[in-house]
Amino acid sequence: MKPTALFATLLLAAAAVLSPIAAQAEKSARQHVVIQVSDNDPAKWNLALNNARNVQTDLGKDKVDVEIVAYGPGLNMLKADSKVAPRLAQALDSSVGLMACENTMRNTKTTKADMYNGISYVAAGVTHIMKREGEGWAYIRP
Amino acid sequence: MKPTALFATLLLAAAAVLSPIAAQAEKSARQHVVIQVSDNDPAKWNLALNNARNVQTDLGKDKVDVEIVAYGPGLNMLKADSKVAPRLAQALDSSVGLMACENTMRNTKTTKADMYNGISYVAAGVTHIMKREGEGWAYIRP
Amino acid sequence: MKPTALFATLLLAAAAVLSPIAAQAEKSARQHVVIQVSDNDPAKWNLALNNARNVQTDLGKDKVDVEIVAYGPGLNMLKADSKVAPRLAQALDSSVGLMACENTMRNTKTTKADMYNGISYVAAGVTHIMKREGEGWAYIRP
Repeated sequence: MKPTALFATLLLAAAAVLSPIAAQAEKSARQHVVIQVSDNDPAKWNLALNNARNVQTDLGKDKVDVEIVAYGPGLNMLKADSKVAPRLAQALDSSVGLMACENTMRNTKTTKADMYNGISYVAAGVTHIMKREGEGWAYIRP
Repeated sequence: MKPTALFATLLLAAAAVLSPIAAQAEKSARQHVVIQVSDNDPAKWNLALNNARNVQTDLGKDKVDVEIVAYGPGLNMLKADSKVAPRLAQALDSSVGLMACENTMRNTKTTKADMYNGISYVAAGVTHIMKREGEGWAYIRP
Repeated sequence: MKPTALFATLLLAAAAVLSPIAAQAEKSARQHVVIQVSDNDPAKWNLALNNARNVQTDLGKDKVDVEIVAYGPGLNMLKADSKVAPRLAQALDSSVGLMACENTMRNTKTTKADMYNGISYVAAGVTHIMKREGEGWAYIRP
């Protein structure tokens, strides 16, 4: 191998090492937060919705991903007859993800017909939150 | 140094840089979660135990490490006379780590004789949780 | 380019790749924790203050950064007439950061004159916590 070819190989190797680091930095410019709701308490539901709205206001709606994950006793937040139902429409309009835990639904004999229209579903709330944390999302438990 | 030797050195250097990254990726294939219990509330204790069981069911018992750390007012969860004592046996059988905070025990004059048999102990609950978060474990506070 | 020059380039490239990794390792030797208070509950405030003190005792005051961020219904913890006011002085003396959320203050018509003297302020509690998590701080929600 000629020195020139060696130098090219060196540059390629350096690029291979550095590019994922650069990609990571670029990716982390966008912010992400997962907000957990596991209490059967409308005051907490309002606090979670306030947190989501404030984060969007502070960082810019298009600069941050916000998900509210409701599981266990918190599932009631996302039901059709939820005490915060009017605010759920606003959250969906603002692209806040509202995710209900299907594990909790199965255990409490709750069907999608009982849930607020337009929300999303995850197989398991806790596992979804773990996944988000692993992806570098911030975790907030109001 | 001959070009061939140079090339070998280059490969070794690249390997030295890349292997910890690969090891990290392999390590992170296994998942980990630390669940905090700091409320004196049997409903929360049951929720924490449900969370642990669901995570094991969803991800596979042998694919995920699960620890429940009880401190402060949550210490009662892991006492011998705990309202969830029958479920503690099941959790231990399923390799869920049950860790009591020795700081809280000292401050509340609680001894190991007061605690459920077979659980583990950490010098300080919060410091242990911080350590786990630093190691990349997900954090869940039910 | 001569082989010797190539080898030097190789070493420089390796150093460029490895030094941020080494810096990261050194940085992470110092520990950091952000403790969230979002409940209007003096028992939780005392628990948060206990957690802060215990972390400093366990890790050494000069080895760990500790911040308590109060927002939403938790803002009352940091008011001048707070039930834990005597402990706030101790926390400040021990270099525990006490940060009040200005978003919450505005929404509840609370001014700095209502707050405990000597505390710090952040524009938004949740956004500040997200920032800390993104910087690698551990998150504790007592």
